[in-house]
Amino acid sequence: MADEDRPDLEDMTVQELLTEMKDISEVIVDLAYASLMYNSRAMASKVNELEDEMEELKYAMRVKALLAARTKEDARELSGILQIASAADRISHAAGEIVDLLDVPPEKRPFITNLINESDEKIRMVRVSQGSDMAGNTIAKLGVEANTGMKIIAMKNRYGWIYDPDDDVKIRAGDDLIVRGTEDGGNRLADFASGRIPWEFDEEASDE
Amino acid sequence: MADEDRPDLEDMTVQELLTEMKDISEVIVDLAYASLMYNSRAMASKVNELEDEMEELKYAMRVKALLAARTKEDARELSGILQIASAADRISHAAGEIVDLLDVPPEKRPFITNLINESDEKIRMVRVSQGSDMAGNTIAKLGVEANTGMKIIAMKNRYGWIYDPDDDVKIRAGDDLIVRGTEDGGNRLADFASGRIPWEFDEEASDE
Repeated sequence: MADEDRPDLEDMTVQELLTEMKDISEVIVDLAYASLMYNSRAMASKVNELEDEMEELKYAMRVKALLAARTKEDARELSGILQIASAADRISHAAGEIVDLLDVPPEKRPFITNLINESDEKIRMVRVSQGSDMAGNTIAKLGVEANTGMKIIAMKNRYGWIYDPDDDVKIRAGDDLIVRGTEDGGNRLADFASGRIPWEFDEEASDE
Repeated sequence: MADEDRPDLEDMTVQELLTEMKDISEVIVDLAYASLMYNSRAMASKVNELEDEMEELKYAMRVKALLAARTKEDARELSGILQIASAADRISHAAGEIVDLLDVPPEKRPFITNLINESDEKIRMVRVSQGSDMAGNTIAKLGVEANTGMKIIAMKNRYGWIYDPDDDVKIRAGDDLIVRGTEDGGNRLADFASGRIPWEFDEEASDE
């Protein structure tokens, strides 16, 4: 989902546009909650950027769908695709509504922290320390989500923030990971990140 | 989130109502995609039920918020809460839009399967076999999400379907789990479920 991986909207197929929209819809709400949780304008403006990107994708998809519909069959399939696109777009606007709350001072929105702490899925920040096996490995090599159940929503490294990082991103000591998942999974990841327990590498996992 | 755990709407605090809405918003979209993927009317009607429940929660919350606002401070906080509630509600309607596609015959919506297969997060079904360590254990004891990264969206056992199962639900041989997560996590879970590899139980995990 990183920008550099994405071809021009013009060159993308309807299916590719739709997949991109679904991927954004899956990360944008988490990112919105995380921005409130960490009172981060940087994250909130990424949410707004993704919201704009979603609009562009929706527009590009409509144009493509109209051009592609030749038969009644086509039209039926394409109208289904537009329905999914509209759902993804709705979700991104929901995320936009959530980040609007950043204008309320943090002490006036304690319910956000409570909300996230009481939800089935928690959001937390974990710092990778020098002694952790995670340091120096890519997200793919570690298989962070498969091994801990925690999805990395965003990370902060020495270069700045990365949102919804790709699998080939390398984790380094000192990086802060904003993750989402169960409480147990979060504790497990915190143990790995602090170096308290060694990472269990999958034998079949490759670095690429 | 299972119904029997929920007190009457009247007895719930604004924060509890909000948490319930957030939890529903997190599972309803996955469930909507899963219903299309498995062409399941049963799952789709659960989505519609959750959508209705969301409406009731939103209504109950508005009434409570209006009664609770005494000062300007209160009003400010409560208006923030209503903003989050509105975001959760939007998401549930997005899920409703997705399941409407069930009226299109499966052969006319191949893009759904492609979409889910090409997304960062996949949805798949896994059957638990007789020889699996998973059989006879609760979701909590196994720590399914923390150990495999896969979230159980729904499961089908001998009694029928369970949606967003609670942690104390026991998994039995023959159960079908509909799960969401990365491809690697799904493969790992399939290995456990088939009994090909033994489950790695956490020492500290308890059965309750």
